[in-house]
Amino acid sequence: MTTEKGSFITIEGIDGCGKSTQAAELCTWLESALGSGKVLRTFEPGGWSGGALLRQLLLDGMALTSRTELLLFLADRSGHLDSEVLPALNRGQWVVCERYTDSTLAYQSWGRGIAAEEIEGLLAWCRFPVPDMTIFLDVDEETARSRLSARRKLDRMESEGEAGFAARVVLGYRELARRHPGRIVVVDAAADVRRVAEQVRGHVERHRLERYRGER
Amino acid sequence: MTTEKGSFITIEGIDGCGKSTQAAELCTWLESALGSGKVLRTFEPGGWSGGALLRQLLLDGMALTSRTELLLFLADRSGHLDSEVLPALNRGQWVVCERYTDSTLAYQSWGRGIAAEEIEGLLAWCRFPVPDMTIFLDVDEETARSRLSARRKLDRMESEGEAGFAARVVLGYRELARRHPGRIVVVDAAADVRRVAEQVRGHVERHRLERYRGER
Repeated sequence: MTTEKGSFITIEGIDGCGKSTQAAELCTWLESALGSGKVLRTFEPGGWSGGALLRQLLLDGMALTSRTELLLFLADRSGHLDSEVLPALNRGQWVVCERYTDSTLAYQSWGRGIAAEEIEGLLAWCRFPVPDMTIFLDVDEETARSRLSARRKLDRMESEGEAGFAARVVLGYRELARRHPGRIVVVDAAADVRRVAEQVRGHVERHRLERYRGER
Repeated sequence: MTTEKGSFITIEGIDGCGKSTQAAELCTWLESALGSGKVLRTFEPGGWSGGALLRQLLLDGMALTSRTELLLFLADRSGHLDSEVLPALNRGQWVVCERYTDSTLAYQSWGRGIAAEEIEGLLAWCRFPVPDMTIFLDVDEETARSRLSARRKLDRMESEGEAGFAARVVLGYRELARRHPGRIVVVDAAADVRRVAEQVRGHVERHRLERYRGER
C-alpha cells in the first residue's frame, strides 16, 4: 500500500480543446503508475448524483440570466465537491476533474461580463479548495469549433451565438495562467492528441516528483 | 384600466402554518378587488420553468450539505425572480409569493446554523429585491406538525428528524419580524383559517391604502 497522498488536478479550456480526451489519457496513465482504484476521473457540471438535473438545467437551452447561471454552477460545484471530490481525496485518491473555478472566472467574467471581483467575492464565500495543479489546454476558438462541429450537435454553451465568445474565454484562461503560474500550466492543445498527452504527462510527473520531494 | 402599481408580497412561516391556504385566500380577494389578471400567485422553491428540477433536488431526500442547499435555493430564487416575479411586477401585477429571503435566513441560519452574516453577505451579492410587504404566519412547531401529518407524507425538509428544528426556525422568523417592523407583519396563525384570512386581508388593505396615499 502506498502512503502517497492524492492530488487534485483540474483540466481547463474551451469546448473542443480536448479536455475529455486528455482526462481519459491522463487517468489511464495515472492508474498504471499509481495502481488500480487510485484515480477518480470526474467533471463539472454534473459529475455527482444531483448533477444530472443541474447539468440539464445549465446546458439544455433554457434562458437563464448570468446570475442564475453562476449560482447554479456554484451549487453544482458545491455538491460535486462534497459528495465526490473531497471524499476521494480523503481516501487518498488522485482526482482529475474537467472544469473547475477557472471555468467560472473565464466564462462568467471574460465571457459573460460579470465583474471579476463580484465572482471572486462569491467564490471566497464558497471556500472551495484550490487545485494542486491545473492544466489549461490552450487552443484558439476556430480550431476548437471545427473539432466540435465535426463531432456532434452543440449544446447551449457551445453554440453561444455571439462570435468571439469563446475567444474571450480563452483570453480569460491565459490571464488566469499568468496570475497563477505556480498552479496553472499551459499546454498547446492545437498539437496532435499524442503530443498533447505527452506534455500533460510530463507536467503531472514533475508535479508528482515535487510533491514527493516536498513530503520526504 | 387602473394605473395602480403592483406590490410584491411574501408569505412566510414554517410548513403547516397555512401559507398555501392563506396565499390562495389572499389572491382570490385581491383579484376581486383589483380585477382579473392583476395578481400572480407563486412560490419558492420551484415556481418557474427551471424550478421543478431544483425543487426535486431540494426536497427529494438527497443528502446535501448546508452550502449546496443554500446555493441551490439562491439559484432557484434568481431564476424565479428573473422569469416570473420581476416581469409580473413590471406588467403592473401584484405578486403573492410563498417563501422568500426570510425563509433563507430563518432556515439556513437559525435552523441549520450557518452564521447570519455569511448568508447576508451572499444575499447582498445577489441583490434580490426587497418585498413591499411580508406576512409572517406565526404558529408553534407542534401545531404545524400536527396539521401536516394529518394531511400527507412529509418531505425531506418537513420530516427533518431533529426535534426543535422548526421551533428554531420560528424563533428566526420572530427575530426577523422584530428587525423589520415596517415590512414584516406578524399574524397569529394558530387561529382558524377564516380569522387568519381576515387579519391578512386587513394588513394588505392597510398596505394598499398607504401606498395609494404615498403615490397621490
